[in-house]
Amino acid sequence: MSLLHEPHHDGSPLYVADEHPRPGALVTVRLRTHTDDPVEAVWIRTTYDAEPVFHPCRVVEWVGDTVWWAGELPLHNPVTHYRFLLAHGTGRDAAQRWVTAAGVIEHDGPDAFDFRLTSHDGPPDWGRDGVVYQVFPDRFARSAAADARAVPDWAVPAGWDDEVAFEPGDPHTPLQFFGGDLDGVVEHLDHVAQVGATILYTTPVFPGESNHRYNASTFDGVDPLLGGDEAYARLSSAVHARGWRLLGDLTTNHTGDTHEWFHRAVADADATTRSWYHFGEHGDYESWMGHHTLPKLNHAEPALRAAMTEGPDSVVARWLRPPFDVDGWRIDVANMTGRLADLDVNHDVARGINRTARAERPDALVIGEHNHDASTDLPGDGWHGTMNYSGFSWPVWSWLRDPDSPARPFGRPVPVPRRGGPALRRSLDEWGGRYGWRATCASWNILGSHDSARIRTVVGDPVQHRVAAGLQFTLPGVPMIFAGDEIGLEGVLGEDARRTMPWHRPETWDHTTLATYGALAAARTAHVALRRGGLRWAHVDDDALMFLREHPEGSVLVVARRAAGPAVDLPLVLGEPLVSTEEPVGPFASGPGVTVWAVVEDPGH
Amino acid sequence: MSLLHEPHHDGSPLYVADEHPRPGALVTVRLRTHTDDPVEAVWIRTTYDAEPVFHPCRVVEWVGDTVWWAGELPLHNPVTHYRFLLAHGTGRDAAQRWVTAAGVIEHDGPDAFDFRLTSHDGPPDWGRDGVVYQVFPDRFARSAAADARAVPDWAVPAGWDDEVAFEPGDPHTPLQFFGGDLDGVVEHLDHVAQVGATILYTTPVFPGESNHRYNASTFDGVDPLLGGDEAYARLSSAVHARGWRLLGDLTTNHTGDTHEWFHRAVADADATTRSWYHFGEHGDYESWMGHHTLPKLNHAEPALRAAMTEGPDSVVARWLRPPFDVDGWRIDVANMTGRLADLDVNHDVARGINRTARAERPDALVIGEHNHDASTDLPGDGWHGTMNYSGFSWPVWSWLRDPDSPARPFGRPVPVPRRGGPALRRSLDEWGGRYGWRATCASWNILGSHDSARIRTVVGDPVQHRVAAGLQFTLPGVPMIFAGDEIGLEGVLGEDARRTMPWHRPETWDHTTLATYGALAAARTAHVALRRGGLRWAHVDDDALMFLREHPEGSVLVVARRAAGPAVDLPLVLGEPLVSTEEPVGPFASGPGVTVWAVVEDPGH
Repeated sequence: MSLLHEPHHDGSPLYVADEHPRPGALVTVRLRTHTDDPVEAVWIRTTYDAEPVFHPCRVVEWVGDTVWWAGELPLHNPVTHYRFLLAHGTGRDAAQRWVTAAGVIEHDGPDAFDFRLTSHDGPPDWGRDGVVYQVFPDRFARSAAADARAVPDWAVPAGWDDEVAFEPGDPHTPLQFFGGDLDGVVEHLDHVAQVGATILYTTPVFPGESNHRYNASTFDGVDPLLGGDEAYARLSSAVHARGWRLLGDLTTNHTGDTHEWFHRAVADADATTRSWYHFGEHGDYESWMGHHTLPKLNHAEPALRAAMTEGPDSVVARWLRPPFDVDGWRIDVANMTGRLADLDVNHDVARGINRTARAERPDALVIGEHNHDASTDLPGDGWHGTMNYSGFSWPVWSWLRDPDSPARPFGRPVPVPRRGGPALRRSLDEWGGRYGWRATCASWNILGSHDSARIRTVVGDPVQHRVAAGLQFTLPGVPMIFAGDEIGLEGVLGEDARRTMPWHRPETWDHTTLATYGALAAARTAHVALRRGGLRWAHVDDDALMFLREHPEGSVLVVARRAAGPAVDLPLVLGEPLVSTEEPVGPFASGPGVTVWAVVEDPGH
Repeated sequence: MSLLHEPHHDGSPLYVADEHPRPGALVTVRLRTHTDDPVEAVWIRTTYDAEPVFHPCRVVEWVGDTVWWAGELPLHNPVTHYRFLLAHGTGRDAAQRWVTAAGVIEHDGPDAFDFRLTSHDGPPDWGRDGVVYQVFPDRFARSAAADARAVPDWAVPAGWDDEVAFEPGDPHTPLQFFGGDLDGVVEHLDHVAQVGATILYTTPVFPGESNHRYNASTFDGVDPLLGGDEAYARLSSAVHARGWRLLGDLTTNHTGDTHEWFHRAVADADATTRSWYHFGEHGDYESWMGHHTLPKLNHAEPALRAAMTEGPDSVVARWLRPPFDVDGWRIDVANMTGRLADLDVNHDVARGINRTARAERPDALVIGEHNHDASTDLPGDGWHGTMNYSGFSWPVWSWLRDPDSPARPFGRPVPVPRRGGPALRRSLDEWGGRYGWRATCASWNILGSHDSARIRTVVGDPVQHRVAAGLQFTLPGVPMIFAGDEIGLEGVLGEDARRTMPWHRPETWDHTTLATYGALAAARTAHVALRRGGLRWAHVDDDALMFLREHPEGSVLVVARRAAGPAVDLPLVLGEPLVSTEEPVGPFASGPGVTVWAVVEDPGH
């Protein structure tokens, strides 16, 4: 049986009538079944105040070989879980299935993979529809002004073409200073445009005695080594002049040990800021992963929250106003923020940041870094989405990896093995189910970042790299490109990935891949189905993933192959290819690559 | 491959060194693999403050064909999640599996089914090792004193042999009054002893204008219709004289509209108790499932908490002292308590009840009623366990049901279908995984209650009934017997199940089944493996479930068959049958029934 004959529901407009339901709303939800399916009756199973309740569905449409069922789902609680019960037969012939976000199951299981709808305000449209370009300022570009700046004492200066230090334990790694700056970024926005990005996200620009600046010494201004506040204002203006958005990067979990708050706290046990950290009796203090240069902040302390995350005078709020004018924040180490042993105020902090940011800008975006499982951290009133390493990066790596590449998900003691398409599908379904449709669509599809190996090094091949990019732009989620990926830069781990952009050596660039990124971004902009469409599997085997992105304004079929394989017969009529990472061979292209096809006729629409 | 060759871990003493770890403890956890398994390296994958971390395991023992791996798991947070990563091969031959509480998986998925360890205090030993007998006072037994009591105005008197009213919508259902009382319970404790129970749980004894008394009019005393406070004191003394325990039943979600608190609240909008309920502007109020006779309590109100759940003057505390001397509480509608739309103080209330009860009696037990998914409600500092309808009752019903029985899980619009053993196994694994080992072991294995159909009516046959009882006493969890199940009473739904005990008509009893309950309870008491042992699957097919309950003091094999089937060859040396619901035919008995066998030799021990 074709996967297309399976019962299906997801959070997209074809299946959920109201994308922004208010508390107490009654939302029409729809389920499709195939005419050959023996189903006779369908219910929505949901809960209110943790009590289960069933609401009947009825057949509302019969289109081609598809039966559309619909029912009314009340949003009694802010986050509402639901699944569908499908029944047929009676007595000895009775059968029941559940349709959950992780697939169809034939046993009674817990709610872990229920669909979910939230009545909290969603992410802004620009945060769902855009393409993010990540810049690590020290390594992106140097303006002429950079040459005139003195290198600070802590730094070990490097030439732009020097190799980056990255061996674990090498003390040079955080100190090696290449001297990229913000005017350098401004000078290369045309390149960012070429990639098709609309959201510029820079890692921290606060002063900090390292090249990564995640150890801020103040949150009150921009590092003079980057050009200071004025340079940031120029970058902000230039970004906004193009109609793009700008995201800051704020470390809420910790500061540097050079931070003014920490200096005061250490100097005086009675200082106001002493309780903003977790000091022990003997002057010892909690820090990020035991790094004493990164003291952990104590968000149980209201005064810290007022300074950092809550209200118009907070760091979160001030940067959303001129001259910086950021449009939102990427929150560093969001997963650990406000959590320490038996303390857990993480959700309070997330909600506070969301509230504070949106009070300044109603369309602010807040993305939380979480390199593990954010399932319970994305109800929708805090982080709008996450950097989706677990639910996108590692599964995609696992499908496409060069088995001989040493690259591994960060923290894991061994590289992930190369796995087949069914494992990838299952990971995508389960993570998507746990995060819910809206948070999944607002989360970032990442092939690599300043914290991980480069995708080119993971897959070891330009064609496979473009397959990865094809998935990044066509699966639900917001593509985030780490600067340099688009020209084929390499790196076996995060520190190694922070290589400089070889602006002056274009002959080293992978121009084919660069053009592919631009084409994929253009296709995503042109076709609403790639941004807002549902996700319905059409075919999965070890080497191929084929899926529909369905939308009322037109659906597309994505055919992704990591290796050549036999043609697959799908009950769809396709139009022209809309974009392809390689020359398409024909419908269901038989070589490795990703092709997006317009769906001209789908018997269910 | 035999299921016994699969890698295995669970929360029992063979696998977890410390059953009561304190915060910050380092706990040795063990994993077994088979010598034929290609695994080369094992790690524990856990989190601290939501950050993932891997701890290596080492081979610590090699016994027969079993390899024992061990590693140290730090309990940094109160509840710690973990799973095992198993790796072998490199490059193209690299493979990885995860061992989770829901089984072995070969893709990277979310933490939903991770194992979990909690550093919160656990349930008391008696609450894990005992057998619960549930009495619905109006229907259990009448003492001679009952004849002398006047029937109240609201009640419709019924003769002991009358049929119970249960048709939905029949106004007589809650009013039909059979007049059972507490001295009647005292008179029949020898019967309770015969069933092997050690914990007596009665549904509410507070005055309330219904036969079920879940609509209390006060929490200050015992209904005079039951014999009043003195009768309760006599029951408590008699129960404790036998070395047993006594559980009360407290409705924290709502009171009756006849409750003194509610009367005051309605009479005077300025009354202290007005804010203890959820009144609207026009005098309307929230109630349980829209029943206006059951106004919902507002646990956001500290004064209500002081009266009901927090501190030595609360209802929760006072009943734990003489003359009532209950040993703990079963909390009614625990799932909805403190939850209403965007309000959710459920965990605060649960923690308060736990704290209050244990301040009175350090070994108090608190069980929360939850007829849906309590996965996130059992961290261990609130409810010790739940009435496990979802994780035990409905799956067992589904395996054993008579397909023509009209019985259905409450709330579900259709009866569950009859399903095979693999579906039952998967349900047990997933629910057990979500609840965690400790909470699963403290939760109640229920075949039926005053709220559901009777098991005899579900399965339609005495032999199948005893198979169900066999699972109730041999799967992890505390057996809870609804009075009358043991003699084969019937009922198609909760109200119908509340039939009177036919003490005077012993010829109607199923004496064989009664004896089986006693034998199963005795076996559970005699063999620690049945109370404290792990759960490892040996064989599962549509008609048979075979599993080991493993314990350092000796393991047992449970063979459960719903129908005759071929012999299964298991790599175990068995001793004598320890208990059997039917005459055992031989090892791996071929007829329907449950037999527990001593394991004389298991190559892994």
